[in-house]
Amino acid sequence: MENAKKNSAITSRDADFAQWYTDVCRKAKLMDYSSVKGFIDYLPYGYAIWEEIQNYLNKRFKENGAENVYLPLVIPMSLFNIEKEHVEGFAPEALIATHGGGKELDDPLVIRPTSEILFSELFKHTISSYRDLPIRYNQWCNVVRWEKTTRPFLRGSEFLWQEGHCLFVSREEAEENVRRMLDVYDDLGRDLLAIPFLKGRKTKHETFAGAVATYTIEALMHDGKALQSGTTHYLGTGFAEAYGINYLGKNNALEVPHQTSWGVSTRLLGAIIMVHGDDNGLSLPPLVAPIQVVIIPIRQQEPGVLEACRSIEEVLKTKGIRVKVDDDDGHTPGWKFAEYEMKGIPLRIEVGPRDLAAGNAVLTKRVNGEKITASIAQIEERIPSLLNEIHRDMYEKASKFLAEHIYDAESIEELKNGLEKGGYVRMAYCGEEECELAIKEITGGGTARCIYKEIDDGHVCPICGKPAHIVAYFAKAY
Amino acid sequence: MENAKKNSAITSRDADFAQWYTDVCRKAKLMDYSSVKGFIDYLPYGYAIWEEIQNYLNKRFKENGAENVYLPLVIPMSLFNIEKEHVEGFAPEALIATHGGGKELDDPLVIRPTSEILFSELFKHTISSYRDLPIRYNQWCNVVRWEKTTRPFLRGSEFLWQEGHCLFVSREEAEENVRRMLDVYDDLGRDLLAIPFLKGRKTKHETFAGAVATYTIEALMHDGKALQSGTTHYLGTGFAEAYGINYLGKNNALEVPHQTSWGVSTRLLGAIIMVHGDDNGLSLPPLVAPIQVVIIPIRQQEPGVLEACRSIEEVLKTKGIRVKVDDDDGHTPGWKFAEYEMKGIPLRIEVGPRDLAAGNAVLTKRVNGEKITASIAQIEERIPSLLNEIHRDMYEKASKFLAEHIYDAESIEELKNGLEKGGYVRMAYCGEEECELAIKEITGGGTARCIYKEIDDGHVCPICGKPAHIVAYFAKAY
Repeated sequence: MENAKKNSAITSRDADFAQWYTDVCRKAKLMDYSSVKGFIDYLPYGYAIWEEIQNYLNKRFKENGAENVYLPLVIPMSLFNIEKEHVEGFAPEALIATHGGGKELDDPLVIRPTSEILFSELFKHTISSYRDLPIRYNQWCNVVRWEKTTRPFLRGSEFLWQEGHCLFVSREEAEENVRRMLDVYDDLGRDLLAIPFLKGRKTKHETFAGAVATYTIEALMHDGKALQSGTTHYLGTGFAEAYGINYLGKNNALEVPHQTSWGVSTRLLGAIIMVHGDDNGLSLPPLVAPIQVVIIPIRQQEPGVLEACRSIEEVLKTKGIRVKVDDDDGHTPGWKFAEYEMKGIPLRIEVGPRDLAAGNAVLTKRVNGEKITASIAQIEERIPSLLNEIHRDMYEKASKFLAEHIYDAESIEELKNGLEKGGYVRMAYCGEEECELAIKEITGGGTARCIYKEIDDGHVCPICGKPAHIVAYFAKAY
Repeated sequence: MENAKKNSAITSRDADFAQWYTDVCRKAKLMDYSSVKGFIDYLPYGYAIWEEIQNYLNKRFKENGAENVYLPLVIPMSLFNIEKEHVEGFAPEALIATHGGGKELDDPLVIRPTSEILFSELFKHTISSYRDLPIRYNQWCNVVRWEKTTRPFLRGSEFLWQEGHCLFVSREEAEENVRRMLDVYDDLGRDLLAIPFLKGRKTKHETFAGAVATYTIEALMHDGKALQSGTTHYLGTGFAEAYGINYLGKNNALEVPHQTSWGVSTRLLGAIIMVHGDDNGLSLPPLVAPIQVVIIPIRQQEPGVLEACRSIEEVLKTKGIRVKVDDDDGHTPGWKFAEYEMKGIPLRIEVGPRDLAAGNAVLTKRVNGEKITASIAQIEERIPSLLNEIHRDMYEKASKFLAEHIYDAESIEELKNGLEKGGYVRMAYCGEEECELAIKEITGGGTARCIYKEIDDGHVCPICGKPAHIVAYFAKAY
């Protein structure tokens, strides 16, 4: 019974959300800590979720003309220092290698925190004519940003991500790419993760170091805090100019291309945990769940029970469903129920002698505990549609939660009140960096997550009193 | 015509094999050099080949019970220094990070050259009972080994690979795992890469730093040199003892598990290039070719030609074949023939007005230039089997070349003669490290690639004169 105790030892969300999060990460065996702070071990159960995200995105990227490549882990310091804004943004978090092969390096190497510089270098010597454009590259890789405070998946010194890097002849094409890839990320939320995102442009203050414009998808966690879950950047021609990328245009004149970049990371695992999880543990959307259906025999020593479980398993496998029978007789069915709830398996099937006699099995949805008695003969047809239904249930539940946590504020006082309740607060302000910093200070951490709309309707900024140009979604964020 | 000149500018293999190799890598756009020596850019055409290898192996690993994980990029120096033999093997090539977040690190970080240490750390705190075994983990990642002389794909300061790391209760299970994974690599050669490998155990001198036994697959390049293409290691209990991994056995006593590791890398791309390529460039086995079939219209302005090409493309796509029509009217068909030969597309389809009138297309196999006139109506059925046939042609061609380049030697003189001709030379010797070093010295680089057989038949070692215990395959190697 030691294990049963372990299961019940997940801290409740309301008691301590941070501890609840860590408990779920550890007890569901998504990850483990390594001996270096901020560097984690992705265990099979966590990594498999990331692989499903990769599969979905690789398909969507390909549809949008992107090709996978792989560029180096390291950036020479001399190259790193060229684009000023970008350096300022990333230098403070850099991990720097100074020795290789027993010697001190002449030019130290920055472990890539992101690869705009490396792609710019590649583009510089691979494009020469407008015929070489557009270029749409993507890479899956690890990046390193030396962080002071770290949390599994949410903020690590190393994380896994994809970064798209593209070049276009015109600003219009580049901006179209940036919007389209943001839509792909939004689709990923709706179609795969069952997570509704707020989608929009970042304010000037929150724009990526070196970009002209940044777009974001923002998710709302159960504790009312926002999680930036993916970004796309229109980089303009700044990197191209700094790194000397140009090409011979149609009119035989040298032109500078327009650049974009876009990425999502293993941070999405944190979003899945904190959007869908509850006091019983993880709750996984069916399409990313490493195990979609668990079958638990009741009184498994009685004749026919295990055989029925195995035959359901076989049938579901042929349908491409990820299914597992747990016939370990060292644990009670009750222990198993708790265990697989904690691991967030979307659907549980129980088969016991009494159900079996009636030709039935009992199905339980993880998302809401709903129980369904289903005929075993029809289970093959039933399960795929039930998994779709569970996906919809989860998306609707999260969408309702999001809708219920969006407030409007006309003053700093109302903004503070809204942020106290948790969620997003829409408020008009001038749009300037100084006022955003003041708002963050006054509200104890409220930041502009993205722009709701631009206005010119007589509103004034509650900080500086000048005309308000922007209504932004403010929230406290991870 | 500038481009046509570029095509013809591939150095011939016999003139300068090293330059031929570099020409093919660059001109087929498999890779590009980055600004740091030994770190390369994997371009889409090269990376896509690696992705096909990943797809094949992920499936095979899963069948063999392995689960994917991801462990950190960095190893603390204090941890790195524990297993003596391993450190001696890898310390000279280490890339070391000394600064993070603007501060000097207390414990410098070694960028992983391989991950035995990190997996040992993970195992240490995740296994406690014999019920936790076996563990079969695999990870796909980048590793760094600071090399003095580097060649694209063959030897780089950074490369991509997979590394499997497993733990077992018994030596027998561990050794079975090591043999089985070697078979998986051998299958990869035969089934996907069309490369025959020599397969066997490494001599003591060539055994992995820290392993009890190392097994290898070795391929023979066109220039007669061997390429170590994958290895599997039985690590015994050395790492487990050094890093304190143990578990409570069935008899309630503390036991030490038996460990294995196994890996292949992007080096396989080098093998594909050097086994199959010729003076016209790359030649890709169909199953890894990013484009399997290229369709080239002849006199494409004439009615029906382009339409016929497109309809063949559509039909082949529905069969899951990776196909491309090149209808660029800026190049002649002759230029295109040379271009796609250079890129190694396994099958070319030409469609011109005359063929079309007869309902035919002309197919050309890259492997041997064989031309086939085929009815367009039957092309859908014909192509898949033709691609299989091309795979077999390539495998047989490479197998014949291998068989013709294996010699037997009874003396150092015969060994030297055999190595001069290029290929593998089987010779009996004592099996000791000193004699292998002497053989390497005398032959100007001949090393024992793997053990052919163990003997006790009166042969003596040609170096020390003591009884010979081993017949090994000797070769000069990359």
